Amino acid sequence: MKSTSVKELLSKSLLLQEVSVNGWVKTFRSNRFIALNDGSTLANIQCVVDFEKLDPALLKQINTGAALKVSGTLVESQGRGQSVEIQVSDIFVHGGSDPEKYPIQPKKHSLEFLREKAHLRIRTNTFAAVMRVRSALSFAIHQYFIENGFYNLHSPVITGSDAEGAGEMFRVTTLDGQEPPLNEDGSINFKEDFFGKETNLTVSGQLEAEAYAMALGKVYTFGPTFRAENSNTSRHLAEFWMVEPEVAFYDLDDNMDLAEDFIKKVIQYILKHCQEDLKFLEKRLLDEEKSKPQAERSAMPLIEKLKFVSENTFQRLTYTEAIDILRNSKPNKKKKFQYTIDEWGADLQSEHERYLVEKHFKCPVILFDYPAKIKAFYMRLNEDGKTVRAMDILFPGIGEIVGGSQREERLEVLREKMAALHIPEEELWWYLDLRKFGSAVHSGFGLGFERLVLFATGMGNIRDVIPFPRTPQNAEF
Amino acid sequence: MKSTSVKELLSKSLLLQEVSVNGWVKTFRSNRFIALNDGSTLANIQCVVDFEKLDPALLKQINTGAALKVSGTLVESQGRGQSVEIQVSDIFVHGGSDPEKYPIQPKKHSLEFLREKAHLRIRTNTFAAVMRVRSALSFAIHQYFIENGFYNLHSPVITGSDAEGAGEMFRVTTLDGQEPPLNEDGSINFKEDFFGKETNLTVSGQLEAEAYAMALGKVYTFGPTFRAENSNTSRHLAEFWMVEPEVAFYDLDDNMDLAEDFIKKVIQYILKHCQEDLKFLEKRLLDEEKSKPQAERSAMPLIEKLKFVSENTFQRLTYTEAIDILRNSKPNKKKKFQYTIDEWGADLQSEHERYLVEKHFKCPVILFDYPAKIKAFYMRLNEDGKTVRAMDILFPGIGEIVGGSQREERLEVLREKMAALHIPEEELWWYLDLRKFGSAVHSGFGLGFERLVLFATGMGNIRDVIPFPRTPQNAEF
Repeated sequence: MKSTSVKELLSKSLLLQEVSVNGWVKTFRSNRFIALNDGSTLANIQCVVDFEKLDPALLKQINTGAALKVSGTLVESQGRGQSVEIQVSDIFVHGGSDPEKYPIQPKKHSLEFLREKAHLRIRTNTFAAVMRVRSALSFAIHQYFIENGFYNLHSPVITGSDAEGAGEMFRVTTLDGQEPPLNEDGSINFKEDFFGKETNLTVSGQLEAEAYAMALGKVYTFGPTFRAENSNTSRHLAEFWMVEPEVAFYDLDDNMDLAEDFIKKVIQYILKHCQEDLKFLEKRLLDEEKSKPQAERSAMPLIEKLKFVSENTFQRLTYTEAIDILRNSKPNKKKKFQYTIDEWGADLQSEHERYLVEKHFKCPVILFDYPAKIKAFYMRLNEDGKTVRAMDILFPGIGEIVGGSQREERLEVLREKMAALHIPEEELWWYLDLRKFGSAVHSGFGLGFERLVLFATGMGNIRDVIPFPRTPQNAEF
Repeated sequence: MKSTSVKELLSKSLLLQEVSVNGWVKTFRSNRFIALNDGSTLANIQCVVDFEKLDPALLKQINTGAALKVSGTLVESQGRGQSVEIQVSDIFVHGGSDPEKYPIQPKKHSLEFLREKAHLRIRTNTFAAVMRVRSALSFAIHQYFIENGFYNLHSPVITGSDAEGAGEMFRVTTLDGQEPPLNEDGSINFKEDFFGKETNLTVSGQLEAEAYAMALGKVYTFGPTFRAENSNTSRHLAEFWMVEPEVAFYDLDDNMDLAEDFIKKVIQYILKHCQEDLKFLEKRLLDEEKSKPQAERSAMPLIEKLKFVSENTFQRLTYTEAIDILRNSKPNKKKKFQYTIDEWGADLQSEHERYLVEKHFKCPVILFDYPAKIKAFYMRLNEDGKTVRAMDILFPGIGEIVGGSQREERLEVLREKMAALHIPEEELWWYLDLRKFGSAVHSGFGLGFERLVLFATGMGNIRDVIPFPRTPQNAEF
């Protein structure tokens, strides 16, 4: 008999039929009720056994975590809490699970404890729900772009360029670490390295995506990016996934429209497809926040928050307008900010972004036209000569979720900016070529995928929304 | 006026309306006919200008590669070769393109020449078609798995394990390359490295996918993987993308069924969605093969080959049966193989695989039940004690496109195999845990994405089906 999934069983289409299902024991109550889960959905299927007919040796193997194949008849359930159940006729134990040793017992484990067991934490309801939502978000992203005429490109992960300027990089090498080949001046002879030059892990696929946008029109990358920064915070990972669309002939307004529509649509996708997991995660968050003071709790329950974001217009304002609001804000005047906002040109800190989003506007905010000095070299300089066509999208509880810009399409302006920052033209000769041959206005942005998953699941630590997190001093599994 | 895409214009829905379109000049004939392309589709839109009304300075800027915005009326075309055209009323030049310097002129360039211009080669019809097909295949893969109840996971790229055993690895480090911190015995002190231990770029996401399959049931990864092997061939890359599904409770037969269905469905997807690009690539291949002797040409035109594969059953046979066929084959008896097949246990070389696929069966072949000695430690040992439940799918012209297996689910057998290969248990403690707690039969495979793109596009070199190839001595762009 072909096995079916728990999801299919719960849909009731096989009622009163002989079925068999594989899964793992969540709980086994009263020697009678097995709650079996196979990951296809959050809910378990209740399997009712007649323990007097079962081999006692087999009975002893039915412990939390054991893998079983259960066969029997699918019937309407008499008990509360489930609509159907299996009247079990046969059980096969794929693999047992010693209750003395299995770490994932049916009780509440701390997220910290579970991080040490990243290979097993996916067997908890919380992590299974988070990772199913993550998977749905990932698919929603691909679907959104493909349906809107974008082409996916895979930007290279290993890069010979260190000019992207988005942060510290990891070196990639096959040279002998102890005794690397040296040049006469004592420096490392990278000519003998695998690629014949120094190479690093990419911090962004944007520059390569620009090359593709300037031929295919609308493109996006969705791949791993890296930061070798010693940031041990709940919002930073050394390895994370980034979504980066890039569009020829789009200016900053088009770019903001795209980003806002994109985020709303992928959130609508999970509201439609992940109801059960989102309800569970909403309840989890409520439970977690019960112990917190009122002021630190979420303003809205999870699903209401997701609906709110997907249905309401993001607030757009210039950096300059934001500075005015912040300068005149209560916390600024009362010196409650750690960094007081005095002058135009200051880089906004997390506390300022949170004030704008959570206190002032109470909705997602798009800030644009930032001072050139605090933004990357490739951003389009405005006619005022001091601001660039950059935009950041700020989300409640998350902070920056998107950073993007219209790109500098003018060869001479780009050259001047690179020179001022001592970026050698030889490093980015091909990037300059894009401005020599058929250059045009174009724009794009990067969305930190894990920050989106954090927001969508209501989890508090970015380590808990990626399967096997990489952080300083941690590359286990 | 909002701009439209060339694809939309060619659909004729805007006939007799005022339109504007952005794109790059492919050709400009007789000072009158601009062929404009925006990457949305292979075809160009013909833009008819009245050169007597145009500013001569502007006219001079209309060269191959220049970016234009063209406005005018969309009308039925009187000329041959296109159904609609734009009667131009206005042209804006986004960016010119010096015909003396622009490398991508409207003539035939060699693929080798274009590899040196990977940032601009995407502006040729061939590479645009290849990369649109690549994008479609990528989406088809995600869609196939999501529609079939799989969950996507992102396996880590940086790994602390070097026990995966699939090949040479790249080291990832932030240590000073010239003067790394050393232990007392002179070895490198990896405790001071970013992750507190030696780390490498992953060669496969399989082991982590197994952990997820043993909770979510059906999962897949689709991410970059790496080999630091000095293989300068037309089939190898140092950085390539791999699709790796992993399914709990699947045995090898289920696994072969999945792989075959999966490949057929993604090929059907591009046959449906990429007709125009595939027709172009089919013609390109025919042209290319004209100069080859008959024996070296493809047996079927590209689209016929894709249909053949997507509609016919793959031939399945055991390694042992394959060895019998090979041992008795003409080339083996006449010593035409470089490696003569004498004994059971020999590793099959590319020449043997090609004989089976291209000469003997003339269709895709799935070989299974390989000798344990030539396969990885994690593959399920058969009851005969000498073969494992491995399978390879071999494709005409490509060779191995899929490698997979049922995984060893028995703790003691796995331990013995690891011990025999000197793989320390501490390295893979978590992988062993999966066999301690709720272990079960499970299976999966890896598909080299670029090999699929090679097959689907009829290109001959793997460097030409990935945007920016990484190979020994080459990490440009």
